[in-house]
Amino acid sequence: MRSIGDDAVEIQETLREASSRCNLVIVTGGLGPTDDDRTARAAASAFGLPMVLHGPSLERIRERFKRLGFEMTPNNERQAYVPEGADVISNSLGTAPGFALDVSECLLVFVPGVPRELERMLDESVLPLAHDRFARGRVVRSRTLKVFGLTESKMDQMVQGALDGIPGVSLASLPRYPENRLRVTVREDSHEHASRALEEAEGRLRERIGTLVYGLDDQELESVVEDLLRAQGKTLAVAESCTGGLIAHRLTNVAGSSDVLDRGVVTYSLQAKTDILGVTAALLRGPGPVSAEVAEAMAMGVRKHAGTTLGLATTGVAGPSGGTEDIPVGTVFVGLADDTRSWSRLFRLRGGRANIKQLAATIALDWLRRYLLGEAPTAYPEPWK
Amino acid sequence: MRSIGDDAVEIQETLREASSRCNLVIVTGGLGPTDDDRTARAAASAFGLPMVLHGPSLERIRERFKRLGFEMTPNNERQAYVPEGADVISNSLGTAPGFALDVSECLLVFVPGVPRELERMLDESVLPLAHDRFARGRVVRSRTLKVFGLTESKMDQMVQGALDGIPGVSLASLPRYPENRLRVTVREDSHEHASRALEEAEGRLRERIGTLVYGLDDQELESVVEDLLRAQGKTLAVAESCTGGLIAHRLTNVAGSSDVLDRGVVTYSLQAKTDILGVTAALLRGPGPVSAEVAEAMAMGVRKHAGTTLGLATTGVAGPSGGTEDIPVGTVFVGLADDTRSWSRLFRLRGGRANIKQLAATIALDWLRRYLLGEAPTAYPEPWK
Repeated sequence: MRSIGDDAVEIQETLREASSRCNLVIVTGGLGPTDDDRTARAAASAFGLPMVLHGPSLERIRERFKRLGFEMTPNNERQAYVPEGADVISNSLGTAPGFALDVSECLLVFVPGVPRELERMLDESVLPLAHDRFARGRVVRSRTLKVFGLTESKMDQMVQGALDGIPGVSLASLPRYPENRLRVTVREDSHEHASRALEEAEGRLRERIGTLVYGLDDQELESVVEDLLRAQGKTLAVAESCTGGLIAHRLTNVAGSSDVLDRGVVTYSLQAKTDILGVTAALLRGPGPVSAEVAEAMAMGVRKHAGTTLGLATTGVAGPSGGTEDIPVGTVFVGLADDTRSWSRLFRLRGGRANIKQLAATIALDWLRRYLLGEAPTAYPEPWK
Repeated sequence: MRSIGDDAVEIQETLREASSRCNLVIVTGGLGPTDDDRTARAAASAFGLPMVLHGPSLERIRERFKRLGFEMTPNNERQAYVPEGADVISNSLGTAPGFALDVSECLLVFVPGVPRELERMLDESVLPLAHDRFARGRVVRSRTLKVFGLTESKMDQMVQGALDGIPGVSLASLPRYPENRLRVTVREDSHEHASRALEEAEGRLRERIGTLVYGLDDQELESVVEDLLRAQGKTLAVAESCTGGLIAHRLTNVAGSSDVLDRGVVTYSLQAKTDILGVTAALLRGPGPVSAEVAEAMAMGVRKHAGTTLGLATTGVAGPSGGTEDIPVGTVFVGLADDTRSWSRLFRLRGGRANIKQLAATIALDWLRRYLLGEAPTAYPEPWK
């Protein structure tokens, strides 16, 4: 992959070089309306083609502006020009059309850089076109296992040799803080064979790693948690101090989360902990706001306040200031309460404020996942002391 | 910039090619402990150098594992090997050291890909080294103006020609959904001249765009809002429905936010809106939960509940389901309350659930910013109808 600047000559050279080395080149970005959007013109120059107006695209851009009630500026019209001979790829989400250009042995595809436009156009047009042209009769598929609670080294060691003897399979270890991923790729001659090899590989990796695999591919931890809650007919309320709303934000990123999430509270001040959660002044004075007792009181309090099956809470010091010798930055207590009891555990996390928030939220969600799977929530596997 | 796979031959070829074209090559990633971390060995092979053990690095890795109480696996030792002749760059945040290698006219610098390690090592070692070697006596500086509330085309049109006549200055327009940025870069012979040119450029751009510039460089909108609150001695409570905790999360990302943020509530269920915010059943039945009336009642309710100066609220339909003909997905009301009155406004947003949450949270925070600057909050500039 290459990223290059908005320099017409560099774009031209890169396109020429890439097209001489590869059979498929996908180019993203630089199709917008501004002066530094130079890709379409540079592509035309690179291969000695004139730019031509694509009437239907101009019409679509005009209609789009009219429909949205935006003012159309003259530079938006530029977006309807493409190199002569290009096949236009329509963009249902934005103004800039994409296009595909055949240059001797190479297919060059140009799409906008706006992520949602790019993703839609890749899925709907570019990948089918590429598969049709280059990969008929061949199947390459991959599956990603998402793992939380192991260092990359430890995970790597645990899966060493696990896929030996499965033909055409490869395994990549992908750290994606705060989790790690294992991506299995198979190359086969049919979908059936590819599926079988993926199943086999997934099974063997799960044998090694167990329930630390929380999900597959694009499954998010929060959606796995919500699916478990939904399947078990349980509801949740969240009380956050050090995670500051991040757990609620992640849970509500999932469509349909209102089925299982009743409410969240971000009790940043002591008064808020007392007002909403009924954490007593004695607890706040005695064990203190960052303590196992308060984490459990918050979890019980929010559960009771909301009338939900479960309550989940965090309290800690996200930093950079506010730490003491006894309770340094990175000290986080997670609390969980159901109708019979409550649990809490101390984690000592490292990193900046954003990392501590993110890791604490992930630990809390994963703790809940493991509780819902029937595991003892305090038996959390390290790497956090 | 090039991104290449974990292929030793490709890494070698890329390093050789880059070192023959450039005077400085910065290589990130591939220094980890796993089998697919191949960069150090590939660098050695590319330039015909043996790998040698760097004793102090091995010692540091051992100490680090001991201190953290992690188990050290044999593959961690690999990280202490570097190509012969390399200058080791120490890594205070992780196990893998970096290194710098001089190959004829090129300085190649290798650092780990873990973002926080990479950032620290760039700031502390790599950039000073590069400046010392290549840029003595020359000053290149840039400043970024962050703009919210304009489409990129409109912004581009507004600043057309604004920097004419300032020598050595260039302007880039950088869309970063949901905001747009303007980056001014100056090339000068002294820090003084560079500062003067940047000041001049910033002033001229602000003349064109006014208070839609919410911040500079790495200033986040949420921190600008908190600085204004702090300067005015005001406090805030937030009630979120469709943004689901994202506003509280963003506000609490800023160190010291507990000075001004008392609490946030994520009132996902109707019951939560009544319990915590005192939104009446009549309002929820009449205008309905997604309405101007409820947005204002939420803002007033959370302000009263928390005893803060201000209350900020969102209610809407983030989708993908839950929309109706009258209240389609993307309908969002923002509400704001102070001690004298309350305001609300309807926004019709487009995009997926994540985009709608993000845009609604940004609008709410920016609305608060503009209120704190003394502007009428409902006079929000479009592009949202």
